Amino acid sequence: MKLLGISGVLVLALAFVVRDFGCQASNSTARPSNDVYSVESYRADAERLIEAALADSSAFERLAELTDTFGPRFSGSQSLEDALDWIVSELRADGFDAVMEDPVMVPRWVRGEESLSLVSPRRADMQILGLGGSIATPPGGIEADVLVVESFEELEARASEAAGKIVLFNAPFTSYGRTVTYRTNGAIEAAKVGAVASLIRSVGSGTMYTPHTGSMRYQDGVKKIPHAAVTIEDAEMMQRMQDRGQRVRVRLKMSAQTLPDSPSRNIVVEIKGRVAPDEIVVMGGHIDSWDVGQGAMDDAGGCVAAWQALLLMKELGLQPRRTVRVVFWTNEENGLRGGNAYLNDRKEEVGNHVLAIETDSGVFTPSGFGFSGSDEAYEMVSSVGRLLENIGAGTITRGGGGADIGPIMREGVPGMGLTVDGSRYFYYHHTNADTIDKLDPREMNLCVAALAVMAYVVADMPERLPWDA
Amino acid sequence: MKLLGISGVLVLALAFVVRDFGCQASNSTARPSNDVYSVESYRADAERLIEAALADSSAFERLAELTDTFGPRFSGSQSLEDALDWIVSELRADGFDAVMEDPVMVPRWVRGEESLSLVSPRRADMQILGLGGSIATPPGGIEADVLVVESFEELEARASEAAGKIVLFNAPFTSYGRTVTYRTNGAIEAAKVGAVASLIRSVGSGTMYTPHTGSMRYQDGVKKIPHAAVTIEDAEMMQRMQDRGQRVRVRLKMSAQTLPDSPSRNIVVEIKGRVAPDEIVVMGGHIDSWDVGQGAMDDAGGCVAAWQALLLMKELGLQPRRTVRVVFWTNEENGLRGGNAYLNDRKEEVGNHVLAIETDSGVFTPSGFGFSGSDEAYEMVSSVGRLLENIGAGTITRGGGGADIGPIMREGVPGMGLTVDGSRYFYYHHTNADTIDKLDPREMNLCVAALAVMAYVVADMPERLPWDA
Repeated sequence: MKLLGISGVLVLALAFVVRDFGCQASNSTARPSNDVYSVESYRADAERLIEAALADSSAFERLAELTDTFGPRFSGSQSLEDALDWIVSELRADGFDAVMEDPVMVPRWVRGEESLSLVSPRRADMQILGLGGSIATPPGGIEADVLVVESFEELEARASEAAGKIVLFNAPFTSYGRTVTYRTNGAIEAAKVGAVASLIRSVGSGTMYTPHTGSMRYQDGVKKIPHAAVTIEDAEMMQRMQDRGQRVRVRLKMSAQTLPDSPSRNIVVEIKGRVAPDEIVVMGGHIDSWDVGQGAMDDAGGCVAAWQALLLMKELGLQPRRTVRVVFWTNEENGLRGGNAYLNDRKEEVGNHVLAIETDSGVFTPSGFGFSGSDEAYEMVSSVGRLLENIGAGTITRGGGGADIGPIMREGVPGMGLTVDGSRYFYYHHTNADTIDKLDPREMNLCVAALAVMAYVVADMPERLPWDA
Repeated sequence: MKLLGISGVLVLALAFVVRDFGCQASNSTARPSNDVYSVESYRADAERLIEAALADSSAFERLAELTDTFGPRFSGSQSLEDALDWIVSELRADGFDAVMEDPVMVPRWVRGEESLSLVSPRRADMQILGLGGSIATPPGGIEADVLVVESFEELEARASEAAGKIVLFNAPFTSYGRTVTYRTNGAIEAAKVGAVASLIRSVGSGTMYTPHTGSMRYQDGVKKIPHAAVTIEDAEMMQRMQDRGQRVRVRLKMSAQTLPDSPSRNIVVEIKGRVAPDEIVVMGGHIDSWDVGQGAMDDAGGCVAAWQALLLMKELGLQPRRTVRVVFWTNEENGLRGGNAYLNDRKEEVGNHVLAIETDSGVFTPSGFGFSGSDEAYEMVSSVGRLLENIGAGTITRGGGGADIGPIMREGVPGMGLTVDGSRYFYYHHTNADTIDKLDPREMNLCVAALAVMAYVVADMPERLPWDA
């Protein structure tokens, strides 16, 4: 494995043919003046970016100000639009002259009042979070017996018991990918067997009586039923009650509404490339959040980290060969309208996208990036990773990207996601506990450093990162 | 240290003079028939108790049934009295013939509705838990600017700023003992400097937007003001806002009421001693809880563990020389009426208490016991600890006890508290997250084993555990 890695680096070194000496930014470290060099020629610039990223806690402080001042930034809310106004004004204050606002119409789902009461075997109030897009219950609520199942397979086996009941999917968290299907599809599968409402065990890896919200779907031809998340504690309790042979009965009330689409925008800011300004390395995250907590991890941190990475290049006078762009995508959470609009509104630019990088797993300690693209491109970005080894962020693995960059990746753009310590993210994901106190300035700075070095070097290296053939 | 330990054991061996051979329980392991023996003669019985404790999850299942069926068991609530009825009936079903119910009048504080809204610098709802015993606000609430301080010292230094404000004590959790003073005394100190209400940062060692309730005090001659706990997240946010120079303003509403005292009881059950039935080893916990969560850790687990320990002695036919008693104390949380009543109602028995053991830190993995008593008694119980070394629960440290056994300990009774892994307890303490899913059947069984062995051996050993001279 190690030998293969070295040979990959040699291949890359040969590929890095300098094509345009004349346009070196005056205050950038001078490149070797022969025709062939390796990524090592970027080490000095990388070290300057890393040092600057770790120098203070300004990125963290900006993140705190953003999240404290505007709170959650849900699509369709005034808070989101106020936060976007503030970001535009801050970007201009940073000295970025080209701050673009791409209009995007976003869904507007409003949670309203919601409650779940245990009626049998005893009376108790249980905390819930309705799932985004759910319909309301009738005003008086829905009172019904509960059928607890651990999986779709168990529901199928017990389909004859489900009619007229509220189905509770008590699926233990294995991975997000495997468990989230109950949130996404639970209302559909429950309705198919005649349930009058559907509940899920919150999709989270830890709990302190913490409901998690998130997106859900209905299906044409299948009755829409209300869909909400209970805490892991209450899901397990109702499972135990059912296992003891007790009748479990609840009353669910939800007044959720889906209102007409509402105007929002993607914010786009960039440092124009000094040689090939039409070629673009884009990075960013989604600026919208759920309507709970403050969306500090998900995903204000990713947005502010990319912003800070761009700001550091600017402050250090590192204007790369190609354009580096940061995008604050809107409405990732319940519609992906921002990511789709970025593709549709900027179709003529897509072919010029060299690389897209997303950060959407929290700005925890980074270990590197996951990459999706050609083998040749993988070798090239892997070699850039060597510049991040001394901060532990140099491991480039196969497979990566992000929801917002998904639409352009499907057009062929190589994509990357920042890989971070994932041990805590799903404690807080889509909950009231997604707040900045769970983050750490130094961990965030390491993310900034990794993003800055990767984006800068890929934007500056002589050979354009190749797409798949 | 090791040599000292060995010499302590030798002292103990000499002290264990067999005084009454004739009354060995027929199915108990036979004792050596010479005049002098060591605690090692109890190893076979200890191993039987340990094996039985670890054999199944019946204690955990009983705990789950108790907490699921009755929910929180707050003093003055019907749930507490229903839970006590169920315990009495279960004890009788277990075959305990002497189940006593000592009447105790307990305080009745009712939380009612409560809310806290951030008014400036932005509008947001914040979760709170009023503190037990707090007065209400006027029906429309109290709206005032917030003064955030980190300590009583800072409040004193800023006393001139406090008049007419709501003081928020944002004291970081260091230890429970050091931090809980803001919960206990915060309303007094805030009122002294003219505050109109008082808030604390929840007293907990971790948070997922989790308010912690608990007891509080007023002081004669100092105005009573409402007192509530905010989450750590919101406390830190208001601190950051104040540090940025922003005006922090909130509206607090609480409708809490203190109603007339209400009847409850301590439940007392025992295995009578076969030789000295008047001499008592008592163990237990408090059966009341706060009005949130299910009080699984605090302290149903301690109660059920002691109950199971007694049941195992009974099932194994281990009737010790002295009486072993289990008490389910009522109203530890907001009055300690149960512990005080136990002393007052059973004054004539107190001198016959050989040892009191309390479990009130959650039934997590036990490491041993903390002990308060004479040096001689400490050597004796330390040597009993050797029987628990193979389950890792044999470490006896100096200093220990519990709130409920505090009143009799102050009369001279040697006291012990079960020492457990404390790493998670203050995440959940006095919150909605104090539920059984945080506990583990095997960890609970280890607590049962430790309690059973310690109580049985101290109740059976020839020499009575001495009080302080």
